[in-house]
Amino acid sequence: MKTVQTIKELISIMDNYQDKLIGFVPTMGYLHEGHQSLLIKARQDNDVVVASIFVNPAQFGPNEDLDRYPRDLAHDTALAKEAGVDILFVPTAEEMYPFESGITLHAGELSTKLCGATRPGHFDGVLKVITKLFHLVKPTSAYFGQKDAQQLAIIETFVNAYNFPVKIVRIPTIREIDGLAKSSRNVFLSEKERAEAVHLFKALTLATDIWKDTKNIEEALIKGKAHIEKNTTGKIDYFEALSYPNLQAVSNQVDHVLFATAVFFEKARLIDNIIVDVKEV
Amino acid sequence: MKTVQTIKELISIMDNYQDKLIGFVPTMGYLHEGHQSLLIKARQDNDVVVASIFVNPAQFGPNEDLDRYPRDLAHDTALAKEAGVDILFVPTAEEMYPFESGITLHAGELSTKLCGATRPGHFDGVLKVITKLFHLVKPTSAYFGQKDAQQLAIIETFVNAYNFPVKIVRIPTIREIDGLAKSSRNVFLSEKERAEAVHLFKALTLATDIWKDTKNIEEALIKGKAHIEKNTTGKIDYFEALSYPNLQAVSNQVDHVLFATAVFFEKARLIDNIIVDVKEV
Repeated sequence: MKTVQTIKELISIMDNYQDKLIGFVPTMGYLHEGHQSLLIKARQDNDVVVASIFVNPAQFGPNEDLDRYPRDLAHDTALAKEAGVDILFVPTAEEMYPFESGITLHAGELSTKLCGATRPGHFDGVLKVITKLFHLVKPTSAYFGQKDAQQLAIIETFVNAYNFPVKIVRIPTIREIDGLAKSSRNVFLSEKERAEAVHLFKALTLATDIWKDTKNIEEALIKGKAHIEKNTTGKIDYFEALSYPNLQAVSNQVDHVLFATAVFFEKARLIDNIIVDVKEV
Repeated sequence: MKTVQTIKELISIMDNYQDKLIGFVPTMGYLHEGHQSLLIKARQDNDVVVASIFVNPAQFGPNEDLDRYPRDLAHDTALAKEAGVDILFVPTAEEMYPFESGITLHAGELSTKLCGATRPGHFDGVLKVITKLFHLVKPTSAYFGQKDAQQLAIIETFVNAYNFPVKIVRIPTIREIDGLAKSSRNVFLSEKERAEAVHLFKALTLATDIWKDTKNIEEALIKGKAHIEKNTTGKIDYFEALSYPNLQAVSNQVDHVLFATAVFFEKARLIDNIIVDVKEV
Protein backbone atom coordinates (compact mmCIF):
# COMPACT_ATOMS: atom_id res chain seq x y z
CA MET A 1 0.00 0.00 0.00
CA LYS A 2 1.21 3.46 -0.92
CA THR A 3 0.29 6.50 1.16
CA VAL A 4 -0.04 9.65 -0.93
CA GLN A 5 -0.30 13.17 0.47
CA THR A 6 -0.32 15.43 -2.58
CA ILE A 7 -2.76 15.88 -5.43
CA LYS A 8 0.10 15.97 -7.91
CA GLU A 9 1.35 12.53 -6.87
CA LEU A 10 -2.17 11.09 -6.79
CA ILE A 11 -2.89 12.28 -10.35
CA SER A 12 0.43 10.88 -11.54
CA ILE A 13 -0.27 7.46 -9.96
CA MET A 14 -3.88 7.26 -11.16
CA ASP A 15 -2.72 7.95 -14.73
CA ASN A 16 -1.27 4.43 -14.71
CA TYR A 17 -4.64 2.82 -13.99
CA GLN A 18 -6.83 4.36 -16.72
CA ASP A 19 -7.78 0.93 -18.08
CA LYS A 20 -8.32 -0.75 -14.70
CA LEU A 21 -11.38 -1.16 -12.51
CA ILE A 22 -10.84 1.37 -9.74
CA GLY A 23 -12.74 1.11 -6.46
CA PHE A 24 -12.83 4.18 -4.23
CA VAL A 25 -13.75 4.53 -0.55
CA PRO A 26 -13.74 8.17 0.66
CA THR A 27 -13.62 8.46 4.47
CA MET A 28 -12.93 10.90 7.27
CA GLY A 29 -10.68 8.32 8.94
CA TYR A 30 -10.86 6.73 12.41
CA LEU A 31 -11.78 3.62 10.51
CA HIS A 32 -13.99 0.92 12.02
CA GLU A 33 -15.69 -2.24 10.80
CA GLY A 34 -18.17 -0.13 8.85
CA HIS A 35 -15.40 1.33 6.70
CA GLN A 36 -13.75 -2.06 6.58
CA SER A 37 -16.85 -3.56 4.97
CA LEU A 38 -16.68 -0.86 2.24
CA LEU A 39 -12.99 -1.56 1.65
CA ILE A 40 -13.54 -5.32 1.47
CA LYS A 41 -16.31 -4.91 -1.11
CA ALA A 42 -14.16 -2.46 -3.10
CA ARG A 43 -11.31 -5.00 -3.00
CA GLN A 44 -13.60 -7.79 -4.26
CA ASP A 45 -14.98 -5.74 -7.16
CA ASN A 46 -11.89 -3.95 -8.53
CA ASP A 47 -8.30 -4.15 -9.79
CA VAL A 48 -7.17 -1.14 -7.79
CA VAL A 49 -8.53 0.13 -4.46
CA VAL A 50 -8.10 3.76 -3.43
CA ALA A 51 -9.18 5.03 -0.01
CA SER A 52 -9.01 8.61 1.20
CA ILE A 53 -8.79 9.92 4.74
CA PHE A 54 -9.72 13.58 4.94
CA VAL A 55 -11.61 15.30 7.72
CA ASN A 56 -13.24 17.76 5.36
CA PRO A 57 -13.57 21.22 6.95
CA ALA A 58 -16.12 22.23 4.28
CA GLN A 59 -18.75 19.87 5.73
CA PHE A 60 -18.46 21.04 9.35
CA GLY A 61 -20.43 24.02 10.63
CA PRO A 62 -18.79 26.71 12.79
CA ASN A 63 -20.16 25.13 16.01
CA GLU A 64 -19.56 21.52 15.02
CA ASP A 65 -16.88 19.04 16.06
CA LEU A 66 -14.20 19.56 13.37
CA ASP A 67 -11.37 20.09 15.87
CA ARG A 68 -12.29 17.19 18.10
CA TYR A 69 -13.31 14.77 15.33
CA PRO A 70 -11.35 11.61 16.28
CA ARG A 71 -8.15 10.90 14.34
CA ASP A 72 -5.77 7.90 14.39
CA LEU A 73 -3.71 7.64 11.24
CA ALA A 74 -1.52 4.77 12.47
CA HIS A 75 -4.57 2.61 13.18
CA ASP A 76 -6.23 3.68 9.90
CA THR A 77 -3.11 2.86 7.89
CA ALA A 78 -2.93 -0.62 9.42
CA LEU A 79 -6.64 -1.27 8.84
CA ALA A 80 -6.49 -0.02 5.23
CA LYS A 81 -3.43 -2.16 4.47
CA GLU A 82 -5.07 -5.20 6.04
CA ALA A 83 -8.20 -4.63 3.92
CA GLY A 84 -6.11 -4.61 0.74
CA VAL A 85 -6.06 -0.90 -0.10
CA ASP A 86 -3.49 -0.06 -2.82
CA ILE A 87 -3.43 3.71 -2.48
CA LEU A 88 -4.26 5.65 0.67
CA PHE A 89 -4.78 9.35 -0.05
CA VAL A 90 -4.27 11.53 3.04
CA PRO A 91 -4.21 15.18 2.00
CA THR A 92 -4.10 18.25 4.25
CA ALA A 93 -6.85 20.87 4.12
CA GLU A 94 -4.38 23.25 2.41
CA GLU A 95 -3.70 20.61 -0.24
CA MET A 96 -7.42 20.13 -0.95
CA TYR A 97 -8.42 23.79 -0.72
CA PRO A 98 -5.41 25.90 -1.74
CA PHE A 99 -7.62 28.84 -2.75
CA GLU A 100 -11.24 29.93 -2.57
CA SER A 101 -12.71 30.11 -6.06
CA GLY A 102 -16.06 31.53 -5.02
CA ILE A 103 -17.69 28.79 -7.15
CA THR A 104 -20.01 26.74 -4.94
CA LEU A 105 -22.22 23.65 -5.00
CA HIS A 106 -25.58 23.61 -3.24
CA ALA A 107 -27.35 20.40 -2.32
CA GLY A 108 -30.74 22.15 -2.39
CA GLU A 109 -34.03 20.70 -1.15
CA LEU A 110 -32.64 17.21 -0.46
CA SER A 111 -30.38 18.80 2.15
CA THR A 112 -33.17 20.56 4.04
CA LYS A 113 -34.51 17.34 5.61
CA LEU A 114 -33.21 14.99 8.33
CA CYS A 115 -29.59 15.78 9.29
CA GLY A 116 -29.48 18.67 6.85
CA ALA A 117 -32.11 20.62 8.79
CA THR A 118 -29.73 21.17 11.73
CA ARG A 119 -26.50 21.14 9.69
CA PRO A 120 -26.84 23.99 7.15
CA GLY A 121 -24.13 23.79 4.49
CA HIS A 122 -23.05 20.30 5.57
CA PHE A 123 -24.07 18.55 2.36
CA ASP A 124 -22.77 21.43 0.22
CA GLY A 125 -19.38 20.65 1.76
CA VAL A 126 -19.81 16.93 1.10
CA LEU A 127 -20.56 17.61 -2.58
CA LYS A 128 -17.54 19.92 -2.82
CA VAL A 129 -15.07 17.34 -1.56
CA ILE A 130 -16.69 14.43 -3.40
CA THR A 131 -16.49 16.32 -6.71
CA LYS A 132 -12.79 16.97 -6.19
CA LEU A 133 -12.05 13.40 -5.06
CA PHE A 134 -13.99 11.83 -7.93
CA HIS A 135 -12.10 14.03 -10.42
CA LEU A 136 -8.75 13.05 -8.89
CA VAL A 137 -9.33 9.32 -8.41
CA LYS A 138 -11.57 8.74 -11.46
CA PRO A 139 -13.10 5.64 -9.84
CA THR A 140 -15.16 3.03 -11.67
CA SER A 141 -17.16 2.49 -8.46
CA ALA A 142 -17.37 4.39 -5.18
CA TYR A 143 -18.57 2.79 -1.95
CA PHE A 144 -20.73 4.47 0.67
CA GLY A 145 -22.34 3.16 3.83
CA GLN A 146 -26.10 3.17 4.20
CA LYS A 147 -25.59 4.54 7.70
CA ASP A 148 -25.33 8.03 6.21
CA ALA A 149 -28.52 7.49 4.21
CA GLN A 150 -29.15 11.14 3.43
CA GLN A 151 -25.56 11.58 2.25
CA LEU A 152 -25.98 8.52 0.04
CA ALA A 153 -29.29 9.80 -1.36
CA ILE A 154 -27.74 13.18 -2.19
CA ILE A 155 -24.61 11.67 -3.75
CA GLU A 156 -26.66 9.22 -5.83
CA THR A 157 -28.83 12.11 -7.06
CA PHE A 158 -25.78 14.30 -7.73
CA VAL A 159 -23.95 11.61 -9.71
CA ASN A 160 -27.08 10.96 -11.74
CA ALA A 161 -27.94 14.62 -12.42
CA TYR A 162 -24.37 15.63 -13.30
CA ASN A 163 -23.41 12.43 -15.17
CA PHE A 164 -20.34 11.59 -13.10
CA PRO A 165 -18.79 8.50 -14.74
CA VAL A 166 -18.91 6.45 -11.54
CA LYS A 167 -21.16 3.76 -10.07
CA ILE A 168 -22.29 4.41 -6.50
CA VAL A 169 -22.43 1.23 -4.41
CA ARG A 170 -24.50 1.19 -1.23
CA ILE A 171 -23.15 -0.97 1.63
CA PRO A 172 -25.40 -2.04 4.55
CA THR A 173 -24.74 -0.60 8.01
CA ILE A 174 -22.35 -2.62 10.19
CA ARG A 175 -23.53 -2.99 13.79
CA GLU A 176 -22.17 -3.94 17.19
CA ILE A 177 -23.45 -7.26 18.57
CA ASP A 178 -26.25 -5.46 20.41
CA GLY A 179 -27.36 -3.61 17.25
CA LEU A 180 -25.73 -0.18 17.69
CA ALA A 181 -24.54 1.14 14.33
CA LYS A 182 -20.74 1.40 14.16
CA SER A 183 -19.61 5.03 14.15
CA SER A 184 -16.39 6.97 14.71
CA ARG A 185 -18.37 9.12 17.14
CA ASN A 186 -19.35 6.17 19.43
CA VAL A 187 -16.10 6.73 21.36
CA PHE A 188 -17.62 9.92 22.77
CA LEU A 189 -20.44 8.03 24.56
CA SER A 190 -20.31 7.53 28.33
CA GLU A 191 -20.74 3.95 29.56
CA LYS A 192 -24.37 4.66 30.41
CA GLU A 193 -25.04 6.32 27.05
CA ARG A 194 -23.36 3.44 25.23
CA ALA A 195 -25.85 1.05 26.88
CA GLU A 196 -28.76 3.33 25.96
CA ALA A 197 -27.61 3.90 22.38
CA VAL A 198 -28.79 0.47 21.27
CA HIS A 199 -32.34 1.81 21.54
CA LEU A 200 -31.96 3.91 18.38
CA PHE A 201 -31.91 0.74 16.30
CA LYS A 202 -34.56 -0.90 18.50
CA ALA A 203 -36.87 2.09 17.98
CA LEU A 204 -36.27 2.06 14.22
CA THR A 205 -36.99 -1.68 14.12
CA LEU A 206 -40.16 -1.16 16.17
CA ALA A 207 -41.35 1.64 13.88
CA THR A 208 -40.70 -0.32 10.67
CA ASP A 209 -42.47 -3.37 12.13
CA ILE A 210 -45.52 -1.29 13.00
CA TRP A 211 -45.52 0.32 9.57
CA LYS A 212 -45.16 -3.04 7.80
CA ASP A 213 -48.14 -4.38 9.79
CA THR A 214 -50.44 -1.37 9.70
CA LYS A 215 -49.12 1.02 7.01
CA ASN A 216 -49.80 3.68 9.63
CA ILE A 217 -46.81 6.03 9.46
CA GLU A 218 -47.99 8.34 12.24
CA GLU A 219 -48.37 5.53 14.74
CA ALA A 220 -45.03 4.00 13.73
CA LEU A 221 -43.23 7.31 14.27
CA ILE A 222 -44.98 8.10 17.57
CA LYS A 223 -44.15 4.69 19.03
CA GLY A 224 -40.58 4.76 17.72
CA LYS A 225 -39.96 8.18 19.26
CA ALA A 226 -41.57 7.13 22.54
CA HIS A 227 -39.24 4.13 22.70
CA ILE A 228 -36.15 6.37 22.50
CA GLU A 229 -37.56 8.88 24.99
CA LYS A 230 -38.37 6.11 27.47
CA ASN A 231 -35.09 4.21 27.16
CA THR A 232 -32.41 6.88 26.70
CA THR A 233 -31.25 10.18 28.21
CA GLY A 234 -30.60 11.46 24.68
CA LYS A 235 -32.51 14.29 23.00
CA ILE A 236 -34.19 13.34 19.73
CA ASP A 237 -33.15 15.58 16.82
CA TYR A 238 -35.51 13.81 14.41
CA PHE A 239 -37.30 10.50 13.97
CA GLU A 240 -38.81 10.44 10.49
CA ALA A 241 -39.97 8.36 7.56
CA LEU A 242 -39.38 9.57 3.99
CA SER A 243 -39.27 8.09 0.51
CA TYR A 244 -35.80 6.98 -0.57
CA PRO A 245 -33.80 8.41 -2.36
CA ASN A 246 -36.11 11.37 -3.09
CA LEU A 247 -36.66 12.20 0.60
CA GLN A 248 -40.30 13.16 0.07
CA ALA A 249 -43.41 12.34 2.12
CA VAL A 250 -44.25 8.63 2.03
CA SER A 251 -47.06 7.90 -0.45
CA ASN A 252 -48.53 4.75 -1.96
CA GLN A 253 -46.27 5.12 -5.00
CA VAL A 254 -43.04 4.87 -3.04
CA ASP A 255 -40.66 1.91 -3.62
CA HIS A 256 -38.36 2.41 -0.65
CA VAL A 257 -39.11 3.98 2.72
CA LEU A 258 -36.31 5.38 4.88
CA PHE A 259 -36.90 5.35 8.63
CA ALA A 260 -34.18 7.54 10.12
CA THR A 261 -33.31 9.04 13.47
CA ALA A 262 -30.70 11.30 15.04
CA VAL A 263 -30.25 11.63 18.78
CA PHE A 264 -28.05 14.04 20.73
CA PHE A 265 -26.14 12.54 23.65
CA GLU A 266 -23.84 14.56 25.89
CA LYS A 267 -20.80 14.59 23.57
CA ALA A 268 -22.04 12.82 20.44
CA ARG A 269 -24.91 13.06 18.01
CA LEU A 270 -25.72 9.55 16.74
CA ILE A 271 -27.65 8.63 13.60
CA ASP A 272 -29.16 5.41 12.35
CA ASN A 273 -31.71 4.26 9.78
CA ILE A 274 -33.51 1.36 8.16
CA ILE A 275 -34.53 1.36 4.49
CA VAL A 276 -37.61 -0.78 3.79
CA ASP A 277 -38.13 -2.19 0.31
CA VAL A 278 -41.92 -1.85 -0.10
CA LYS A 279 -42.07 -4.79 -2.55
CA GLU A 280 -40.82 -7.08 0.21
CA VAL A 281 -43.33 -5.95 2.85
CA MET B 1 -18.22 11.59 -38.51
CA LYS B 2 -20.88 10.11 -36.27
CA THR B 3 -23.78 12.21 -34.99
CA VAL B 4 -24.99 11.12 -31.55
CA GLN B 5 -28.19 12.27 -29.88
CA THR B 6 -28.38 10.29 -26.66
CA ILE B 7 -26.24 10.24 -23.54
CA LYS B 8 -26.34 6.46 -23.47
CA GLU B 9 -24.83 6.18 -26.95
CA LEU B 10 -22.23 8.86 -26.23
CA ILE B 11 -21.06 7.06 -23.07
CA SER B 12 -20.88 3.78 -24.94
CA ILE B 13 -18.79 5.30 -27.75
CA MET B 14 -16.45 7.22 -25.43
CA ASP B 15 -15.73 4.01 -23.51
CA ASN B 16 -13.74 2.88 -26.58
CA TYR B 17 -11.40 5.88 -26.38
CA GLN B 18 -10.25 5.75 -22.73
CA ASP B 19 -6.59 5.53 -23.75
CA LYS B 20 -6.73 8.16 -26.53
CA LEU B 21 -6.16 11.90 -26.53
CA ILE B 22 -9.66 13.33 -26.71
CA GLY B 23 -10.24 16.93 -27.82
CA PHE B 24 -13.62 18.50 -27.02
CA VAL B 25 -15.27 21.62 -28.41
CA PRO B 26 -18.58 22.44 -26.71
CA THR B 27 -20.72 24.87 -28.74
CA MET B 28 -24.25 26.23 -29.06
CA GLY B 29 -24.12 25.62 -32.81
CA TYR B 30 -24.55 28.05 -35.73
CA LEU B 31 -20.87 27.44 -36.26
CA HIS B 32 -18.62 30.06 -37.82
CA GLU B 33 -14.88 30.51 -38.39
CA GLY B 34 -14.44 31.11 -34.66
CA HIS B 35 -15.69 27.62 -33.82
CA GLN B 36 -13.81 26.26 -36.81
CA SER B 37 -10.53 27.52 -35.36
CA LEU B 38 -11.29 25.62 -32.12
CA LEU B 39 -12.09 22.45 -34.06
CA ILE B 40 -8.94 22.70 -36.16
CA LYS B 41 -6.77 23.10 -33.06
CA ALA B 42 -8.57 20.18 -31.38
CA ARG B 43 -7.95 18.08 -34.51
CA GLN B 44 -4.23 18.94 -34.51
CA ASP B 45 -3.74 18.07 -30.83
CA ASN B 46 -5.80 14.86 -30.39
CA ASP B 47 -6.61 11.34 -31.55
CA VAL B 48 -10.36 11.85 -31.28
CA VAL B 49 -12.34 15.07 -31.67
CA VAL B 50 -15.77 15.46 -30.08
CA ALA B 51 -17.92 18.55 -30.64
CA SER B 52 -21.27 19.26 -29.05
CA ILE B 53 -24.11 21.43 -30.30
CA PHE B 54 -26.53 22.28 -27.53
CA VAL B 55 -28.37 25.56 -27.05
CA ASN B 56 -28.31 25.26 -23.28
CA PRO B 57 -31.56 26.58 -21.72
CA ALA B 58 -29.89 26.75 -18.29
CA GLN B 59 -27.68 29.63 -19.38
CA PHE B 60 -30.45 31.83 -20.82
CA GLY B 61 -32.44 34.18 -18.61
CA PRO B 62 -36.25 34.42 -18.89
CA ASN B 63 -36.03 37.53 -21.07
CA GLU B 64 -33.11 36.40 -23.20
CA ASP B 65 -32.92 35.07 -26.72
CA LEU B 66 -33.18 31.28 -26.19
CA ASP B 67 -36.06 30.82 -28.64
CA ARG B 68 -34.57 32.96 -31.36
CA TYR B 69 -30.96 31.85 -30.90
CA PRO B 70 -29.92 30.98 -34.47
CA ARG B 71 -29.84 27.29 -35.43
CA ASP B 72 -28.64 25.53 -38.60
CA LEU B 73 -27.81 21.88 -37.99
CA ALA B 74 -27.22 21.03 -41.65
CA HIS B 75 -24.62 23.78 -41.99
CA ASP B 76 -23.08 22.86 -38.61
CA THR B 77 -22.83 19.19 -39.54
CA ALA B 78 -21.06 20.03 -42.80
CA LEU B 79 -18.65 22.42 -41.06
CA ALA B 80 -17.87 19.94 -38.25
CA LYS B 81 -17.25 17.12 -40.75
CA GLU B 82 -15.01 19.36 -42.85
CA ALA B 83 -13.02 20.31 -39.71
CA GLY B 84 -12.39 16.64 -38.93
CA VAL B 85 -14.80 16.08 -36.03
CA ASP B 86 -15.22 12.38 -35.20
CA ILE B 87 -18.25 12.58 -32.92
CA LEU B 88 -20.90 15.30 -33.03
CA PHE B 89 -23.10 15.25 -29.92
CA VAL B 90 -26.47 16.93 -30.50
CA PRO B 91 -28.74 16.25 -27.51
CA THR B 92 -32.18 17.69 -26.82
CA ALA B 93 -32.88 19.67 -23.66
CA GLU B 94 -34.91 16.70 -22.35
CA GLU B 95 -31.94 14.42 -22.91
CA MET B 96 -29.59 16.73 -21.01
CA TYR B 97 -32.01 17.67 -18.22
CA PRO B 98 -34.43 14.75 -17.71
CA PHE B 99 -35.16 15.78 -14.11
CA GLU B 100 -34.47 18.64 -11.71
CA SER B 101 -32.24 17.43 -8.89
CA GLY B 102 -32.33 20.65 -6.90
CA ILE B 103 -28.52 20.44 -6.70
CA THR B 104 -27.05 23.62 -8.18
CA LEU B 105 -23.73 25.21 -9.11
CA HIS B 106 -23.07 28.89 -8.47
CA ALA B 107 -20.33 30.80 -10.25
CA GLY B 108 -20.11 33.32 -7.40
CA GLU B 109 -18.18 36.59 -7.43
CA LEU B 110 -16.50 35.97 -10.81
CA SER B 111 -19.97 36.00 -12.34
CA THR B 112 -20.99 39.37 -10.90
CA LYS B 113 -18.73 41.37 -13.24
CA LEU B 114 -18.88 42.19 -16.96
CA CYS B 115 -21.55 40.13 -18.78
CA GLY B 116 -22.58 38.43 -15.52
CA ALA B 117 -23.83 41.71 -14.06
CA THR B 118 -26.73 41.87 -16.53
CA ARG B 119 -27.14 38.08 -16.97
CA PRO B 120 -27.90 36.70 -13.49
CA GLY B 121 -27.63 32.90 -13.47
CA HIS B 122 -26.01 32.77 -16.90
CA PHE B 123 -22.67 31.42 -15.73
CA ASP B 124 -24.35 29.05 -13.26
CA GLY B 125 -26.03 27.51 -16.30
CA VAL B 126 -22.72 27.37 -18.18
CA LEU B 127 -21.09 25.51 -15.28
CA LYS B 128 -24.03 23.11 -15.11
CA VAL B 129 -23.80 22.06 -18.73
CA ILE B 130 -19.99 22.04 -18.81
CA THR B 131 -19.88 19.72 -15.78
CA LYS B 132 -22.25 17.29 -17.47
CA LEU B 133 -20.46 17.44 -20.83
CA PHE B 134 -17.01 17.00 -19.28
CA HIS B 135 -18.27 13.96 -17.35
CA LEU B 136 -19.77 12.44 -20.50
CA VAL B 137 -16.95 13.15 -22.96
CA LYS B 138 -14.03 12.81 -20.49
CA PRO B 139 -11.82 14.99 -22.71
CA THR B 140 -8.07 15.32 -22.39
CA SER B 141 -8.35 18.93 -23.59
CA ALA B 142 -11.30 21.27 -24.10
CA TYR B 143 -11.15 24.28 -26.41
CA PHE B 144 -12.75 27.66 -25.72
CA GLY B 145 -12.60 30.94 -27.60
CA GLN B 146 -11.11 34.01 -25.95
CA LYS B 147 -14.08 35.98 -27.28
CA ASP B 148 -16.10 34.81 -24.24
CA ALA B 149 -13.31 35.88 -21.91
CA GLN B 150 -15.40 35.87 -18.74
CA GLN B 151 -16.73 32.39 -19.54
CA LEU B 152 -13.16 31.23 -20.11
CA ALA B 153 -11.97 32.79 -16.84
CA ILE B 154 -14.78 31.12 -14.90
CA ILE B 155 -14.26 27.72 -16.54
CA GLU B 156 -10.48 27.87 -15.97
CA THR B 157 -11.09 28.71 -12.31
CA PHE B 158 -13.76 25.99 -11.97
CA VAL B 159 -11.58 23.29 -13.51
CA ASN B 160 -8.71 24.30 -11.26
CA ALA B 161 -10.75 24.53 -8.02
CA TYR B 162 -12.66 21.28 -8.61
CA ASN B 163 -9.75 19.29 -10.14
CA PHE B 164 -11.49 18.37 -13.38
CA PRO B 165 -9.06 16.08 -15.25
CA VAL B 166 -9.04 18.26 -18.37
CA LYS B 167 -6.75 20.88 -19.88
CA ILE B 168 -8.49 24.10 -20.93
CA VAL B 169 -7.06 25.55 -24.14
CA ARG B 170 -7.68 29.22 -24.95
CA ILE B 171 -8.05 30.05 -28.65
CA PRO B 172 -7.70 33.67 -29.92
CA THR B 173 -10.76 35.46 -31.25
CA ILE B 174 -11.36 35.11 -34.99
CA ARG B 175 -12.34 38.37 -36.71
CA GLU B 176 -13.88 39.59 -39.93
CA ILE B 177 -11.51 41.43 -42.27
CA ASP B 178 -12.55 44.77 -40.75
CA GLY B 179 -11.88 43.52 -37.20
CA LEU B 180 -15.41 42.63 -35.99
CA ALA B 181 -15.28 39.51 -33.79
CA LYS B 182 -17.06 36.55 -35.38
CA SER B 183 -20.29 35.73 -33.55
CA SER B 184 -23.42 33.71 -34.15
CA ARG B 185 -25.35 36.82 -33.14
CA ASN B 186 -23.84 39.03 -35.91
CA VAL B 187 -26.66 37.87 -38.23
CA PHE B 188 -29.06 39.97 -36.18
CA LEU B 189 -27.28 43.25 -37.06
CA SER B 190 -28.80 45.66 -39.59
CA GLU B 191 -26.52 46.75 -42.43
CA LYS B 192 -25.89 50.06 -40.68
CA GLU B 193 -25.18 48.36 -37.35
CA ARG B 194 -22.85 45.89 -39.06
CA ALA B 195 -20.79 48.80 -40.34
CA GLU B 196 -20.75 50.40 -36.88
CA ALA B 197 -19.94 47.18 -35.02
CA VAL B 198 -16.30 47.29 -36.07
CA HIS B 199 -15.86 50.16 -33.61
CA LEU B 200 -16.04 47.80 -30.60
CA PHE B 201 -12.67 46.35 -31.55
CA LYS B 202 -11.35 49.77 -32.58
CA ALA B 203 -12.33 51.20 -29.20
CA LEU B 204 -10.69 48.27 -27.36
CA THR B 205 -7.53 48.72 -29.43
CA LEU B 206 -7.54 52.45 -28.69
CA ALA B 207 -7.98 51.85 -24.96
CA THR B 208 -5.22 49.22 -24.76
CA ASP B 209 -2.87 51.49 -26.72
CA ILE B 210 -3.52 54.38 -24.35
CA TRP B 211 -3.01 52.12 -21.36
CA LYS B 212 0.23 50.66 -22.75
CA ASP B 213 1.56 54.21 -23.30
CA THR B 214 0.36 55.89 -20.10
CA LYS B 215 -0.70 53.13 -17.68
CA ASN B 216 -3.69 55.38 -17.04
CA ILE B 217 -6.69 53.03 -16.87
CA GLU B 218 -9.27 55.78 -16.33
CA GLU B 219 -8.19 57.71 -19.41
CA ALA B 220 -8.04 54.51 -21.48
CA LEU B 221 -11.60 53.55 -20.51
CA ILE B 222 -13.03 57.06 -20.99
CA LYS B 223 -11.55 57.37 -24.48
CA GLY B 224 -12.56 53.83 -25.44
CA LYS B 225 -16.16 54.41 -24.37
CA ALA B 226 -16.25 57.79 -26.11
CA HIS B 227 -15.12 56.11 -29.34
CA ILE B 228 -18.06 53.69 -29.26
CA GLU B 229 -20.55 56.41 -28.33
CA LYS B 230 -19.33 58.64 -31.17
CA ASN B 231 -19.21 55.95 -33.85
CA THR B 232 -22.19 53.66 -33.15
CA THR B 233 -25.90 53.80 -32.38
CA GLY B 234 -25.44 50.99 -29.84
CA LYS B 235 -25.86 51.36 -26.09
CA ILE B 236 -22.81 50.44 -24.05
CA ASP B 237 -23.51 47.75 -21.40
CA TYR B 238 -19.95 47.91 -20.06
CA PHE B 239 -16.47 48.94 -21.12
CA GLU B 240 -14.05 47.78 -18.47
CA ALA B 241 -10.54 46.69 -17.61
CA LEU B 242 -9.95 43.91 -15.07
CA SER B 243 -7.18 41.49 -14.15
CA TYR B 244 -7.35 38.16 -15.97
CA PRO B 245 -8.44 35.49 -14.99
CA ASN B 246 -9.26 36.79 -11.47
CA LEU B 247 -11.46 39.64 -12.76
CA GLN B 248 -10.31 42.03 -10.04
CA ALA B 249 -9.32 45.70 -10.22
CA VAL B 250 -6.11 46.23 -12.18
CA SER B 251 -3.10 46.70 -9.88
CA ASN B 252 0.66 46.79 -10.39
CA GLN B 253 0.88 43.08 -9.54
CA VAL B 254 -1.35 41.93 -12.41
CA ASP B 255 0.11 39.76 -15.20
CA HIS B 256 -2.74 40.00 -17.69
CA VAL B 257 -5.25 42.80 -18.20
CA LEU B 258 -8.59 42.14 -19.86
CA PHE B 259 -10.16 45.06 -21.72
CA ALA B 260 -13.74 44.03 -22.44
CA THR B 261 -16.90 45.60 -23.78
CA ALA B 262 -20.52 44.70 -24.46
CA VAL B 263 -22.82 46.85 -26.59
CA PHE B 264 -26.55 46.51 -27.18
CA PHE B 265 -27.69 46.97 -30.76
CA GLU B 266 -31.33 46.77 -31.84
CA LYS B 267 -31.54 42.95 -31.97
CA ALA B 268 -28.15 41.79 -30.75
CA ARG B 269 -25.83 42.36 -27.82
CA LEU B 270 -22.24 42.09 -29.01
CA ILE B 271 -19.15 41.45 -26.89
CA ASP B 272 -15.45 41.73 -27.58
CA ASN B 273 -12.19 41.93 -25.64
CA ILE B 274 -8.43 42.18 -25.76
CA ILE B 275 -6.16 40.52 -23.18
CA VAL B 276 -2.86 42.35 -22.70
CA ASP B 277 0.15 40.42 -21.39
CA VAL B 278 1.77 42.99 -19.08
CA LYS B 279 5.24 41.47 -19.57
CA GLU B 280 5.04 42.33 -23.25
CA VAL B 281 4.03 45.95 -22.74
